[in-house]
Amino acid sequence: MSTSYRKTSFPVSDVRRFLEPGPIVLVSSCYKDQRNIMTMGWYTVMEFTPSLIGCMITASNHSFELIKKSKACVINIPTYDLIDTVIGIGNTSGATIDKFEAFGLTPGKSLQVKAPLIKECYANFECKVVDTKLLNKYNFFILEVVEAHVAKTPKYPETVHYRGDGVFMVSGKNINKRKLFKKSML
Amino acid sequence: MSTSYRKTSFPVSDVRRFLEPGPIVLVSSCYKDQRNIMTMGWYTVMEFTPSLIGCMITASNHSFELIKKSKACVINIPTYDLIDTVIGIGNTSGATIDKFEAFGLTPGKSLQVKAPLIKECYANFECKVVDTKLLNKYNFFILEVVEAHVAKTPKYPETVHYRGDGVFMVSGKNINKRKLFKKSML
Repeated sequence: MSTSYRKTSFPVSDVRRFLEPGPIVLVSSCYKDQRNIMTMGWYTVMEFTPSLIGCMITASNHSFELIKKSKACVINIPTYDLIDTVIGIGNTSGATIDKFEAFGLTPGKSLQVKAPLIKECYANFECKVVDTKLLNKYNFFILEVVEAHVAKTPKYPETVHYRGDGVFMVSGKNINKRKLFKKSML
Repeated sequence: MSTSYRKTSFPVSDVRRFLEPGPIVLVSSCYKDQRNIMTMGWYTVMEFTPSLIGCMITASNHSFELIKKSKACVINIPTYDLIDTVIGIGNTSGATIDKFEAFGLTPGKSLQVKAPLIKECYANFECKVVDTKLLNKYNFFILEVVEAHVAKTPKYPETVHYRGDGVFMVSGKNINKRKLFKKSML
């Protein structure tokens, strides 16, 4: 069973708290009457304000055209309890199945984009495509996070981080080293 | 004290094993008589072959010019035992100190680039700059890993993942879910 999270609005400039550690994320999208979910591990934070994320989405992926045409998507952070679902989503194609139905995930209404968010995920970041300069050569989208929803508890989610070859690393303990930082670096 | 690793050559197309999980890395570089080390958390794997990495390096960072001019750097993976050193490197500027000396790190000879590698790190990925199209707008370099050195043991390093605000996540257990994957997805 997956966890049910109560979420609240979160500052878009702070989403690095959850993305910089590098968890596998689920990307939800829709265009006209089609919707889809894909797994994604190749992305990076690019800026605080505007809140930019760069990500690789292979052109052969069913989600590629949905995101390109709708110019939007939602980045959702699944937790460890959803690991088998994450793998199942990666194993299948949205060209033949509706992944929300197939994996029992609940689409939620986004505030600023048409793409649905995934209710069972710890956090949902609504994104607009803002730069496609590297799309043809590298399948690299630049997204702006325009709205963020994050679970009230726990403070940090137990996330899964992909190593390839079927192996995942599960996030471990959190350590506060704030005292060692120069103030201007925080 | 930091660990001393015995390293061996590693396939450049497989460096995602260590980078996709998202650890903080140390980037070493040199140009003429200057060398430097910086911390980096904003990067992503972009391709297996060629082995591409995209990364953000702020133009105000001393390393920016060294990497831009030399067209090379080394991405080094520090482990948990080096966490205070990682913070110290982030707190200081290579414009005023030599970070190898200041932090007691040992520069090692790279095989394909002039930039020194950091011996105390678990892995060293020698990189050449291959695309600077997003450099002016986003400070985004695209690098190709041309040579990789990885510790023989342990199989997976205990890495540190930055959340911002002085807080790190330490990598946890590794789980093999290979049996759940469709073969073509491995």
